Amino acid sequence: MTTPSTPGSRIDGRAPDQLRPIGITRGWLDHAEGSVLVEYGRTRVLVAASVTTGVPRWRKDSGLGWVTAEYAMLPRATHTRSDRESVRGRIGGRTHEISRLIGRSLRAVVDFKALGENTIVLDCDVLQADGGTRTAAITGAYVALADAVSHLRGLGRLKGEPLMDSVSAISAGFVGGVPLLDLAYEEDSTAGTDMNIVMTGSGDYIEVQGTAEGKPFSRAELDVLLELGAQGCRDLTEIQNKALLR
Amino acid sequence: MTTPSTPGSRIDGRAPDQLRPIGITRGWLDHAEGSVLVEYGRTRVLVAASVTTGVPRWRKDSGLGWVTAEYAMLPRATHTRSDRESVRGRIGGRTHEISRLIGRSLRAVVDFKALGENTIVLDCDVLQADGGTRTAAITGAYVALADAVSHLRGLGRLKGEPLMDSVSAISAGFVGGVPLLDLAYEEDSTAGTDMNIVMTGSGDYIEVQGTAEGKPFSRAELDVLLELGAQGCRDLTEIQNKALLR
Amino acid sequence: MTTPSTPGSRIDGRAPDQLRPIGITRGWLDHAEGSVLVEYGRTRVLVAASVTTGVPRWRKDSGLGWVTAEYAMLPRATHTRSDRESVRGRIGGRTHEISRLIGRSLRAVVDFKALGENTIVLDCDVLQADGGTRTAAITGAYVALADAVSHLRGLGRLKGEPLMDSVSAISAGFVGGVPLLDLAYEEDSTAGTDMNIVMTGSGDYIEVQGTAEGKPFSRAELDVLLELGAQGCRDLTEIQNKALLR
Amino acid sequence: MTTPSTPGSRIDGRAPDQLRPIGITRGWLDHAEGSVLVEYGRTRVLVAASVTTGVPRWRKDSGLGWVTAEYAMLPRATHTRSDRESVRGRIGGRTHEISRLIGRSLRAVVDFKALGENTIVLDCDVLQADGGTRTAAITGAYVALADAVSHLRGLGRLKGEPLMDSVSAISAGFVGGVPLLDLAYEEDSTAGTDMNIVMTGSGDYIEVQGTAEGKPFSRAELDVLLELGAQGCRDLTEIQNKALLR
Amino acid sequence: MTTPSTPGSRIDGRAPDQLRPIGITRGWLDHAEGSVLVEYGRTRVLVAASVTTGVPRWRKDSGLGWVTAEYAMLPRATHTRSDRESVRGRIGGRTHEISRLIGRSLRAVVDFKALGENTIVLDCDVLQADGGTRTAAITGAYVALADAVSHLRGLGRLKGEPLMDSVSAISAGFVGGVPLLDLAYEEDSTAGTDMNIVMTGSGDYIEVQGTAEGKPFSRAELDVLLELGAQGCRDLTEIQNKALLR
Amino acid sequence: MTTPSTPGSRIDGRAPDQLRPIGITRGWLDHAEGSVLVEYGRTRVLVAASVTTGVPRWRKDSGLGWVTAEYAMLPRATHTRSDRESVRGRIGGRTHEISRLIGRSLRAVVDFKALGENTIVLDCDVLQADGGTRTAAITGAYVALADAVSHLRGLGRLKGEPLMDSVSAISAGFVGGVPLLDLAYEEDSTAGTDMNIVMTGSGDYIEVQGTAEGKPFSRAELDVLLELGAQGCRDLTEIQNKALLR
Repeated sequence: MTTPSTPGSRIDGRAPDQLRPIGITRGWLDHAEGSVLVEYGRTRVLVAASVTTGVPRWRKDSGLGWVTAEYAMLPRATHTRSDRESVRGRIGGRTHEISRLIGRSLRAVVDFKALGENTIVLDCDVLQADGGTRTAAITGAYVALADAVSHLRGLGRLKGEPLMDSVSAISAGFVGGVPLLDLAYEEDSTAGTDMNIVMTGSGDYIEVQGTAEGKPFSRAELDVLLELGAQGCRDLTEIQNKALLR
Repeated sequence: MTTPSTPGSRIDGRAPDQLRPIGITRGWLDHAEGSVLVEYGRTRVLVAASVTTGVPRWRKDSGLGWVTAEYAMLPRATHTRSDRESVRGRIGGRTHEISRLIGRSLRAVVDFKALGENTIVLDCDVLQADGGTRTAAITGAYVALADAVSHLRGLGRLKGEPLMDSVSAISAGFVGGVPLLDLAYEEDSTAGTDMNIVMTGSGDYIEVQGTAEGKPFSRAELDVLLELGAQGCRDLTEIQNKALLR
Repeated sequence: MTTPSTPGSRIDGRAPDQLRPIGITRGWLDHAEGSVLVEYGRTRVLVAASVTTGVPRWRKDSGLGWVTAEYAMLPRATHTRSDRESVRGRIGGRTHEISRLIGRSLRAVVDFKALGENTIVLDCDVLQADGGTRTAAITGAYVALADAVSHLRGLGRLKGEPLMDSVSAISAGFVGGVPLLDLAYEEDSTAGTDMNIVMTGSGDYIEVQGTAEGKPFSRAELDVLLELGAQGCRDLTEIQNKALLR
Repeated sequence: MTTPSTPGSRIDGRAPDQLRPIGITRGWLDHAEGSVLVEYGRTRVLVAASVTTGVPRWRKDSGLGWVTAEYAMLPRATHTRSDRESVRGRIGGRTHEISRLIGRSLRAVVDFKALGENTIVLDCDVLQADGGTRTAAITGAYVALADAVSHLRGLGRLKGEPLMDSVSAISAGFVGGVPLLDLAYEEDSTAGTDMNIVMTGSGDYIEVQGTAEGKPFSRAELDVLLELGAQGCRDLTEIQNKALLR
Repeated sequence: MTTPSTPGSRIDGRAPDQLRPIGITRGWLDHAEGSVLVEYGRTRVLVAASVTTGVPRWRKDSGLGWVTAEYAMLPRATHTRSDRESVRGRIGGRTHEISRLIGRSLRAVVDFKALGENTIVLDCDVLQADGGTRTAAITGAYVALADAVSHLRGLGRLKGEPLMDSVSAISAGFVGGVPLLDLAYEEDSTAGTDMNIVMTGSGDYIEVQGTAEGKPFSRAELDVLLELGAQGCRDLTEIQNKALLR
Repeated sequence: MTTPSTPGSRIDGRAPDQLRPIGITRGWLDHAEGSVLVEYGRTRVLVAASVTTGVPRWRKDSGLGWVTAEYAMLPRATHTRSDRESVRGRIGGRTHEISRLIGRSLRAVVDFKALGENTIVLDCDVLQADGGTRTAAITGAYVALADAVSHLRGLGRLKGEPLMDSVSAISAGFVGGVPLLDLAYEEDSTAGTDMNIVMTGSGDYIEVQGTAEGKPFSRAELDVLLELGAQGCRDLTEIQNKALLR
């Protein structure tokens, strides 16, 4: 656990531009080719990277690999219990949307030619939710992906270096008019504007999603959040790098 | 049909910052309280606004109204036929995601207290797709919503003016390194970065979604697209206003 | 639009044996190999014919082609909004039944040997419903099918002339004891007996479906409706032929 | 078992206008308020009539009763095993269509005011199929319905006599140019035209469904089948009446 | 029907260790390769054995055959009507559990090498339920399986004798403190402990499932039920053998 | 982690009658009213107990509470990844079966009158599977249930002491002819007979499920496994009691 600790006025005492304590525990599972328990404060996501030889049918014989992701929440990850999507018989829109975002974000840094015809599936299961589950999932998934790639490298099944860069993600938003980084659930639910930012380790944007939850936001406000997010991703990149060195 | 016609180097001869011909035909259906056939070039979306008294259960007795949207594509809207989601028995992730975006975008300009306990559902069915179906749907849905609100006003069922602003949406992206406004399908499928921008008539942002389809984008590139989108939305607002005057 | 106009005592002033104004607009879509917007008064159905090479698995290597149809309604085609079947996750019995009827009706005039191993899917989407959606769909689908067949002929992919005859369909029923042709929704919902008749251009029957909605009907009453339907189909055949000449 | 036995040239030695041996066994189940094992030759359908107090929500407080039907086939009712619809997770179009036909046919003879707010569900499960399952189901369902109505009468829960007439059904078709009554599977699958006729005991039509399986049929051919069907239903009515006397 | 008849104090006059009248009617269906109507008193299950050449994909080219089972109940098998699982769109947990139990029980006596790459599906449809439907299904399924195996033998498609033993099943439980064999529905629903026992003809156990419905049971009570079940299975084996000799 | 350590000849060095290291970590989640991470060696199950006021509709106004369970596996809990049941749109038979077993097992020790009209749902999610997931889930669920009951007691919402006894569960089986306790995955997959035993803390049986995976088992073999299981449950009860004292 990394715990930066500048004092501040937020619920948990953080400064407006401060991340929650970030935990990245590699190798949390015994079977998966890569696995990470990632924590953003009380938000806890278990990411498992599964490697299989071959690619989906529509990509066969292309010489290219594939990376995809599935996101889900345990029924009691949240304050009150939700029904299981398996029991309801359908995946909800939010789940679909986040799964797609995670997959897209990671694919942005993968050289599929170098990966060869291998598929890596990233299962991101939220064990406990306290805001920022999709950003935690992306940040953790990158680390699990890196481990799965190492696994393939060890087996001599790569055709080059598939990871062209690293990926991390963070939220930012205006709460009571103040721009805050890495919103916890209680902050998120009262935020006027909510932004999720996915960036590469070298500082470019992969995905920018800003939503006016309350009143629409100005260009100036957008710029403040973009800047805050960029700083958060720089911090996360450092934490990821340290975790991968262990 | 509004057909701006500056010459340019794009497939259809448009200038990089030029919209496709935009068509907004109100009252295309006889039963719906509001209905619009909206066209962005060859993209053609039929929007029907349905008014019902009362609100969903979770909102009952709150005094607040509700606005929601559903997006779908006819099987042969696209170049090759797709299976119906009703036949497959599930709604895909993309459909879910866009339905949610449209609903969120319109709710951002609605005063639910003024709407009173009425629900307006916006059905956006893509009859023909040539890129930009979600942005066309939002732009058209605003006009259909305005007509549905007028219908309610005529019945004396409003408690004030529910529309605080107008909403329009447009895409922008880099194709071959050049920033282009309102991407047609062929452009969209080769774009390196793709952005969808939803704005109010008064120039604030409701939703900003930028995605690196190919390589990640820099802050400078993001700024160019944000500016291009803002200009496109200004043009669309004008077209919406004219359509509503007819 | 063809608008025959003998005066009469019906809601819309038609004579008992008079069709509503029939519209057949070919080429309404840009991508589909055949497409028709067919109108029976306010009933408006968009038919798209999609051609694919090959046939379903169970028909492979038979040398025979295949023609099938899918019928659906937009949620706000009707006076009050219906839930989408894709959202409910199942196709209703009525939808299934009508899809099967349309497919069967068109297959009755197709020489599958001449069609060769090509498949034509006819998507019939009701944009607005005012009674007679299934009969309008069949009449329009024949025209779209003819255009799709021409498309295949142009590509030299036929083994002969696949269309052995034309197909049209109409409803008839007793309303207040009076036999009426081509029932509009309001008439249909009060009809004691309701009949749908599908015929070839040369005057034979493909499908006859008579249902006692209220009290059972006599053989004499059945004969009156069969005659009325035959006359309606003769008129529709003429309209189809004219449309195909344009 | 009633076994009329005129010699003839059909597979099973029947005359062209002869029914197969018809069996109607009442009280085949111990729990159901009415139950019938109905046999048309080797076709064997188990019909159970279930009575419940009250009506579906949309009919509540109308003072009117309700009758509905569900049709299904056991997986090995047919020559080769079919997958269960419960396993596939969806009801097929054919099943839907037949369930609706049975329900509609029986409702045509019910006085819902006399039935009072009671619901009768007719479950028609095909134990063995050899052609004519839908017609056997209707003929048997009428008898099971009559028994369920007697049960309600015994409990004093009726407001009058709900059965205004009886209902029976039979198929007819042209096989090799010869008009045949009550087609067995092998005949049905080679029939050029196939007709299902549902009639009241007093000789009126409830439902007439004629389908050209091969080439379209003329008005004269239609008349022959209508006459054949009417005769078959007269015979079935007599058999039903005898069964109900036992 | 075999009807052992020692007097006793049970609802139906049976002795505590007495089976209900057991009926095994072979060849109840015309199409299936093996079929049995099995009755345990008023419980009536129709078992159809369907033979197909080949095995499921995961077992291909193994030289081994496969046996599987599906269990289901007609909606009015029970005292009050249940919704169809096909209509609900899902198979319930109980249905799944029993299907798996039946399949597992029969596979325990099959030599898959001797069966060769043939698949036998056992469809067990409960026509009427009065307790013990799963045990009746297993006992009947063995007989239907034996007939299907004979059918394969007749065709020369076996590689040896696939049936290594026979299988039967029975329930036992404590009702009011008294150990009873073969519980009828009314007994079952008041039983404190409920046990299902599946045994081979030679007296070994295939499956033992004991459940405390009310208060937990002691080892001594368990032993009593195991003994009672063993005796019941001996009687059933004899009845099966007699039925197979007919 | 409790780690008994008699030497032995099993894969992991255990004695035949020795449990794997058992871990019970209470309070693993922040939101749930009771939560336990339970470990049987490498098998790791997260149990969350959720309390809600009120009971399911069918139990309303009975004065009785309700306890139910849902079991599921993360996709990469196993050696190779499995598809999510939410994605497949259905819950498999095995999942259903185990969920039902867990719920039944816990209900056997609950006094529902003392619980009052409260519902406790036990979500058992397998994070990693190495054999014995259902038995670990039951053992852990009892502890989570006890914590949820304490939570209700603290709120003064109980009408007495709802827990009449404790519950634990363990597997036993014959592997290579040797009776082994608490089978790990590799042992389980080669076991000839597999038994799951659920017992109360006071030594009575709640559920006994023995299955012949290979050849049927004798009464003597059954007795050996029953004894082995009883000893395992005694050890687990002690571990549960210690965990609840912490």
